[in-house]
Amino acid sequence: MPAISIKGIHMPESPIRKLVPYAEAAKKRGTKVYHLNIGQPDIKTPKIAMDAVKNADIDVLEYSRSEGSETYREKIAAYYKKNKVNVTANDIMVTTGGSEALLFALGTIADPEDEIIIPEPFYANYNGFATSANIKVVPVVSKFEDNFALPAIEEFEKLITDKTKAILICNPGNPTGYLYSKEEIQKLAAIVKKHDLFLIADEVYREFVYDGIEHYSILQEEGMDDYAIIIDSVSKRYSMCGARIGCLVSKNKAVMTTALKFAQARLSPPTLAQIACEAALETPQSYFDEVNAEYVDRRNTVIEALEKIEGVRVAKPKGAFYCIVELPVKNADHFAQWLLESYDLEGETVMVAPAAGFYSTPNIGLNQVRIAYVLKKENLLKSVHILKEALKVYPN
Amino acid sequence: MPAISIKGIHMPESPIRKLVPYAEAAKKRGTKVYHLNIGQPDIKTPKIAMDAVKNADIDVLEYSRSEGSETYREKIAAYYKKNKVNVTANDIMVTTGGSEALLFALGTIADPEDEIIIPEPFYANYNGFATSANIKVVPVVSKFEDNFALPAIEEFEKLITDKTKAILICNPGNPTGYLYSKEEIQKLAAIVKKHDLFLIADEVYREFVYDGIEHYSILQEEGMDDYAIIIDSVSKRYSMCGARIGCLVSKNKAVMTTALKFAQARLSPPTLAQIACEAALETPQSYFDEVNAEYVDRRNTVIEALEKIEGVRVAKPKGAFYCIVELPVKNADHFAQWLLESYDLEGETVMVAPAAGFYSTPNIGLNQVRIAYVLKKENLLKSVHILKEALKVYPN
Repeated sequence: MPAISIKGIHMPESPIRKLVPYAEAAKKRGTKVYHLNIGQPDIKTPKIAMDAVKNADIDVLEYSRSEGSETYREKIAAYYKKNKVNVTANDIMVTTGGSEALLFALGTIADPEDEIIIPEPFYANYNGFATSANIKVVPVVSKFEDNFALPAIEEFEKLITDKTKAILICNPGNPTGYLYSKEEIQKLAAIVKKHDLFLIADEVYREFVYDGIEHYSILQEEGMDDYAIIIDSVSKRYSMCGARIGCLVSKNKAVMTTALKFAQARLSPPTLAQIACEAALETPQSYFDEVNAEYVDRRNTVIEALEKIEGVRVAKPKGAFYCIVELPVKNADHFAQWLLESYDLEGETVMVAPAAGFYSTPNIGLNQVRIAYVLKKENLLKSVHILKEALKVYPN
Repeated sequence: MPAISIKGIHMPESPIRKLVPYAEAAKKRGTKVYHLNIGQPDIKTPKIAMDAVKNADIDVLEYSRSEGSETYREKIAAYYKKNKVNVTANDIMVTTGGSEALLFALGTIADPEDEIIIPEPFYANYNGFATSANIKVVPVVSKFEDNFALPAIEEFEKLITDKTKAILICNPGNPTGYLYSKEEIQKLAAIVKKHDLFLIADEVYREFVYDGIEHYSILQEEGMDDYAIIIDSVSKRYSMCGARIGCLVSKNKAVMTTALKFAQARLSPPTLAQIACEAALETPQSYFDEVNAEYVDRRNTVIEALEKIEGVRVAKPKGAFYCIVELPVKNADHFAQWLLESYDLEGETVMVAPAAGFYSTPNIGLNQVRIAYVLKKENLLKSVHILKEALKVYPN
C-alpha cells in the first residue's frame, strides 16, 4: 500500500471543524448542540439573492469566465467605490470563496519555502492554505491583554528575511474581532513599502464593525496600489456561506495576470452562486443596519454573560462576530471535546473552537476558545449557561 | 514594487483559455466565433436538476459538510454501484469541480518535488494543478499514430524514481478521446502495486464511450482499493460545467482522512450546486442515450469532414468529446491566434485549442490542435469549412 506523504500528514486539522464527528455523535445520542464553533450565522440570506436564482431560466448551466462574470465584477467594483475603495472590474477576480482568493494570492506571490508574516492568533485555515501552497507562516504574537492590537512594527521587522513575501492581516479579525485603526494600517503600509512586500488583507468582515468606528481598507491608503491584495467574500456579508463566492482585489497588474493563470486552471467559479451574489449587491442598507444592530446586541449579551463566569476573561471585539475567551481550564481542546463527548445539561451542549489551532506558535492559547456569536440571543444565553455549568463539573 | 514569484511566472497558461482575449476582440469586431476550444457542451442541462434549485426554499444559504452533503454522497455511491464500482458514501468526497478533487489528491499524496507520471498529451490543466502543488509532471509519450493507446509499460518503468508517487490517467482521455481497455487498466494496476504508487484516474468522461465499448474503472479492478483514486465531475455528464461540482473517490482510508483536511480548510463545496447535482442523479437513462447518440453523430461528422481537408489527420476518439487533429501548419498556436485575430469567412471564425499546451515535453504537438465536438452538427460542419478555407490562405 502506498505511503501517504509528509505534506498530507503535516496538513493541519481545522480547529473549527475537527470536532464535527463528536458533535455528530452527540446529536445521534439525542443531545442538542449549540454551534459556537463556526461562523455560520443564523441570519437570513437576502431574499433578493435567492429569488434571483429561482427566477433564472437556465438551459445550459455553463462555465462563467475564469475571472467571474463581467456584470457581477462591474457591480462589485461599484460596491467598493461606494465604500471608498477605488477599483474597476479589471482589478477584481471572482473566486470560489475567500479561501480560493487567498490560495491564488499565495500561489501568485510566493514560491515553496517562502514566508508570510501573520499576526497571531489568526484564522486557522491560513495554516492549511499555507501548507497547501508549501509556504511558511511566520507568526508575530498579538496579545490577549491588548485585545489583539497590531504588534509593534519592530516585532515585524525582526522577522523579515529574504524569504518574506507578504504580511497577511485579517481586518476586522477572525478570531479576535480586533479592528485595525487607520494609523495601524499606515504603519503596515510603510513597512511593506520599505521592504518590498505585499500586504494581503482579508477584509471579509469589512461590514461588521461596531461602536461607530469605520473600517479602513488597505486600498484606501494612498500609494498602496502595487502592494495591496484584498481577500473578500460574500459568505458573512449576506449570510451566504454556502454560495462559495469571494474575490481577489488588486491594482497590481502582474498580480492579477498571474492569478488569472490559477483561475483558468480551475476553469470558473460557481455559476448559480454568482447569479445569487450579483443580486445580493442590491440588498438595501436597512438589511445591514438590522444585522449589525443584531450582532452588537449579541456581542454585548455574550460578553456580559461570559464575564460573569468565574475565571473567564474575554478579549473585547470591535468587529466581525468572534471573540477569544480564556477559560479556567488547562487544555481547551480537551474541554471542547469533553463538552461534546461526555457532557450535557438537560440534553443540550455547546460546541466551541479550541483557540490553540488559531496560533502557529505551539503552546499558546491552550486555555482559550473562539466563540462565534452567530446565534439568536436566547441561544447564546443558553450556551453560556451550559458552559458555566460545565466548567463546574469538568475534571480539569 | 514587490517582485512576483518564480512560481507565479512558471504557472502555465491554459491552452484552452489563453486565447480568450482574442476571441473577445473578434466578437467586438462583429465576428461570430465557433468555440471548439473548450469542452462546454451546448447540450441542455437536465430540467430535473435546474428545477430542484428553483424549488428549493432556502432561508439561510449555509455551508454544507466539508465532504459534501450526506444525502448527495449516498446517492453518488448508488450511482457508482449501478456502474459496477462498489463504493460507499464514506469513500466519496464532494469537491468544487473535478479540478479541486485533483488538487486535493495531489496535495494528499505528494510533497514538493515529488513526481507523477502522466501519459501525454494530457488535460492541460494537470500542468497548472501540478505547479500549484509544487510537484513535477513526468510525461510518457503516447503516440498520435497509435491513436494515443497506453504507452508500453517499460516506458513507465523507465521513469519511476523514488520521488514518483502516482501515475495519472484520464479515461476516456481528454484531449485524445482514447478509451483504455480492461487489459490496459490491468497493466497499470500491476505496475502501481509493484512500485507502491497510487493510480489516479480522471474518469469525468466515463459515460461518454461509443461504439458499444464499455468503460472499465480502476475501481472495478480487484485489489486496487489501496491504490486507486478516482477524480470525477458532473460538468460534462449532465452538461453542468458551471455547477463546479466533482468528487474524489477512494477506498484508501488514509487518503480520505488526509484529503478531508484540505476539504475542511476550504470549508465546503457550493451548496446550491449540490442541490442541483443531487437531483441530476435522477436523470433518466434516455437522456444519456440521446446525448451519446448525438455525440457519436457529431464525432463521425467532424472527423469525416476534417479528414477531407488536405494535409489534415485525426486521431480517432473512442470516448469523451475531443479529438487531436494534425494540421498542415508549422505552429498551431500561431494559427489558432491568427484565426481569431486576422481571419474570418463571411464574418465567422473558429476558436481551437493549440495542442502543444497538452504536452509537457517541449516541442511536441506543435502542428496539432484539440477540437471539442460539443456543438450542433451544422455548427461543426460550418467550423470545419472555415478551417478548410482558412488553411488555404494562412501564411504558414
